[in-house]
Parts: sequence; C-alpha cells; structure tokens
Amino acid sequence: MIVRMAELEIDRGSIDAFNALLSEEIEASVRLEFAIAVKENSHLIRVIEGYADQAAYEAHLTVPHFLKYKVGTADMVKSLRLIETDPISLKAKPQISN
Amino acid sequence: MIVRMAELEIDRGSIDAFNALLSEEIEASVRLEFAIAVKENSHLIRVIEGYADQAAYEAHLTVPHFLKYKVGTADMVKSLRLIETDPISLKAKPQISN
Repeated sequence: MIVRMAELEIDRGSIDAFNALLSEEIEASVRLEFAIAVKENSHLIRVIEGYADQAAYEAHLTVPHFLKYKVGTADMVKSLRLIETDPISLKAKPQISN
Repeated sequence: MIVRMAELEIDRGSIDAFNALLSEEIEASVRLEFAIAVKENSHLIRVIEGYADQAAYEAHLTVPHFLKYKVGTADMVKSLRLIETDPISLKAKPQISN
C-alpha cells in the first residue's frame, strides 16, 4: 500500500471554499483519505491518502472528482508539500465522517 | 470526533523495536490510528489517531496496551510534538493493514 501525506497552506480567505471542495472530493473517493486542519490555524491542512498500489495512485490523478478539486482549488493553495511515506501500521474504522 | 497528529523523532538504532511496539499498540486498539514513516527518513514518524470524544481519549491513556507502548518506547523517542486538529473530512476502509 502507498500512503502519502500532503501539507498545505491555504489562502485564509478561501478556507471554507477549499474545505468544501476537498470534502466533496474525499466523499466521492473510494480510497483511504483524511483531511485535518491544525487547531487554531485552520489554513494549515494535512491530507493523508492511501492507494492500493502505484497504478491506483496514477489512475486517481485522472478521475473527474479529483480533477474538479484540483482545478477548483488551484488559486487557493499557497503552498503544497508532498511527503512520501512507508506505512508502519494502519487501523481504521469504516466510513468515519465528521 | 477528536483527531490528533503526533510527529515523532526516534533514535535511529531503535527504529525496529519502536515500530514493533507501536504496531502492537495499534493492533490492540479499537480506535482509528495510523502510523507512517517519512520515506528515506524512517526515524521520522507521524501518528494520526482519532477518538470518539474527549472521554474516549482520556480512557485510552490508561489502558494496558497503551501504557506498555508508552513505557516501552520512552527511551527511544528523541522528540514528540502533538498537534491538535479539527477533522475536515475522513474516509477510511475497514481494517487496513500493511
């Protein structure tokens, strides 16, 4: 399994719009995906995403719901740092939503 | 739901022992919990953990499998930074293991 973490800084005036697009993207996704905002710094966002393998990751980059998010939020993202990781251990309950 | 992220730096000589204890802790847990290591910097670890509420978080601090991990790894952890977060959106498949 491939797990990546993205650290994003969002334009402070666009946080609500960004979160709405990101949530819609996650909702449409069949993957493991989390988005969390640093408390009291809600423009600092961490996204953790898991894929079965490299082919699944590459396929994800072309699906409409991902492209809608990516294009729709392009002007809201001030910085994006992608961190490749190795999973140590993952345990998740099904379909957790906030 | 409460979600926290911990950023840990582990003594490089203790990585395998640390990961074994952490994996055992996660396996025994009923919570949402992820541990990932930064690729090519396997001593830099991120743990994302979710609790139903504050009471569930406080209860977790006293269960034997958590205490075993915490005591067993105390000398292996060079730094620990806890980041409190607000969940934006969470979607997870059940019981994913590496």
